[in-house]
Amino acid sequence: FESSTEKPRAHLTVKKQDPSPPVGNQLPVLQWEHERGLAFTKNNMNYTNKSLVIPKAGDYYIYSQVTFRGHTPIDNKPASVTQVITKVTDSYPEPTQLLTATKTLCNMGNNWFQPIYLGAVIFMEEGDRLMVNVSDIQLVDYTKEHKTFFGAFLL
Amino acid sequence: FESSTEKPRAHLTVKKQDPSPPVGNQLPVLQWEHERGLAFTKNNMNYTNKSLVIPKAGDYYIYSQVTFRGHTPIDNKPASVTQVITKVTDSYPEPTQLLTATKTLCNMGNNWFQPIYLGAVIFMEEGDRLMVNVSDIQLVDYTKEHKTFFGAFLL
Amino acid sequence: FESSTEKPRAHLTVKKQDPSPPVGNQLPVLQWEHERGLAFTKNNMNYTNKSLVIPKAGDYYIYSQVTFRGHTPIDNKPASVTQVITKVTDSYPEPTQLLTATKTLCNMGNNWFQPIYLGAVIFMEEGDRLMVNVSDIQLVDYTKEHKTFFGAFLL
Ligand SMILES: [Mg+2]
Repeated sequence: FESSTEKPRAHLTVKKQDPSPPVGNQLPVLQWEHERGLAFTKNNMNYTNKSLVIPKAGDYYIYSQVTFRGHTPIDNKPASVTQVITKVTDSYPEPTQLLTATKTLCNMGNNWFQPIYLGAVIFMEEGDRLMVNVSDIQLVDYTKEHKTFFGAFLL
Repeated sequence: FESSTEKPRAHLTVKKQDPSPPVGNQLPVLQWEHERGLAFTKNNMNYTNKSLVIPKAGDYYIYSQVTFRGHTPIDNKPASVTQVITKVTDSYPEPTQLLTATKTLCNMGNNWFQPIYLGAVIFMEEGDRLMVNVSDIQLVDYTKEHKTFFGAFLL
Repeated sequence: FESSTEKPRAHLTVKKQDPSPPVGNQLPVLQWEHERGLAFTKNNMNYTNKSLVIPKAGDYYIYSQVTFRGHTPIDNKPASVTQVITKVTDSYPEPTQLLTATKTLCNMGNNWFQPIYLGAVIFMEEGDRLMVNVSDIQLVDYTKEHKTFFGAFLL
């Protein structure tokens, strides 16, 4: 029987992204700060290879917010931003999209910001890995830990 | 004393909506998938008649995301989309709005997407029913379980 | 060892805001209803001076939604709305921004609504205070308790 203070949980915060080549036709994966400032992992929830690794099967509330921002106008072209929380399981080769938000942008002038929050309860197996994909890493606001973040906790 | 693995909880996912006549002046109610893919109900939380039925009084975190989408431009007319999490109690005839989000849309071209997330802690009595209403069912993206969803868990 | 029914938690709802002078260069702080309707505080989580006061150290899920609305068109000027969940600690003079969302608005006609939700897990010390700041109190929809709200619960 497990006390709530012993349950796996984590809150990760944005940091400057290293350039990384795209993998296949998947959306790029965000990197995270996992121990400074507001960020932490505890009770065997670990952060490795851009992913949270689930130490124990169970129902987790999983969430992320990405603040998208740009410095050029969005004109006549149809533009959108997408954020996905993805699961990778050893027993299955393809990543699974757990939660997705796509937002169409309209003309917002030269400097624009659009935050998107996602969150839900998902059953996770031990060893499953969680990550956040975005449509375009160059549009992610990485300047403040409180603007873009990612976390999970065992219920 | 209750272990956290025995607490009522559910995560429901969108599915194709059956046509249904509106009831009075209420907003239309969404239907949900409750057992396939990512969807589940457990520990006596049941899904029936488009509603989650609360098996046990207590404080629940309740959430939903609806992805709205359209295939025609939003022109000069003021257009908006609304999502409501509603409670129905046997002891009271009128549904109660628990959480509401209304978002005004602007001109976004021919194919647009707008996700809205809602979530909060609400005290629920045994037998209370939870549902999600939207301003227009025809604008709900039902194509992917990870784009539109609804859940609750006892704290 | 603590039962989940004894954990500190609260859900606060919007009410009409008293006029209050700005403090330094901080964003204005919202006032909340803490006991009527859907609002409550329990298990030693108290509401005082526009703030939730944390009674016990631990990891809290903290959330708020603000519905912004206006009655005049947003024209050529770049307009945005900002919502921040802030922590104040006795041992540190400056408030800390925990979670922030800034959204640029586009032309939405004469009457517009834009909800923003924020939520995440944050470690809090006993005595820490939580509040919600907004860019402009006059743009906050205070007409319904289910449109603008703020809460926290100990995990
Ligand atoms: Mg949430």
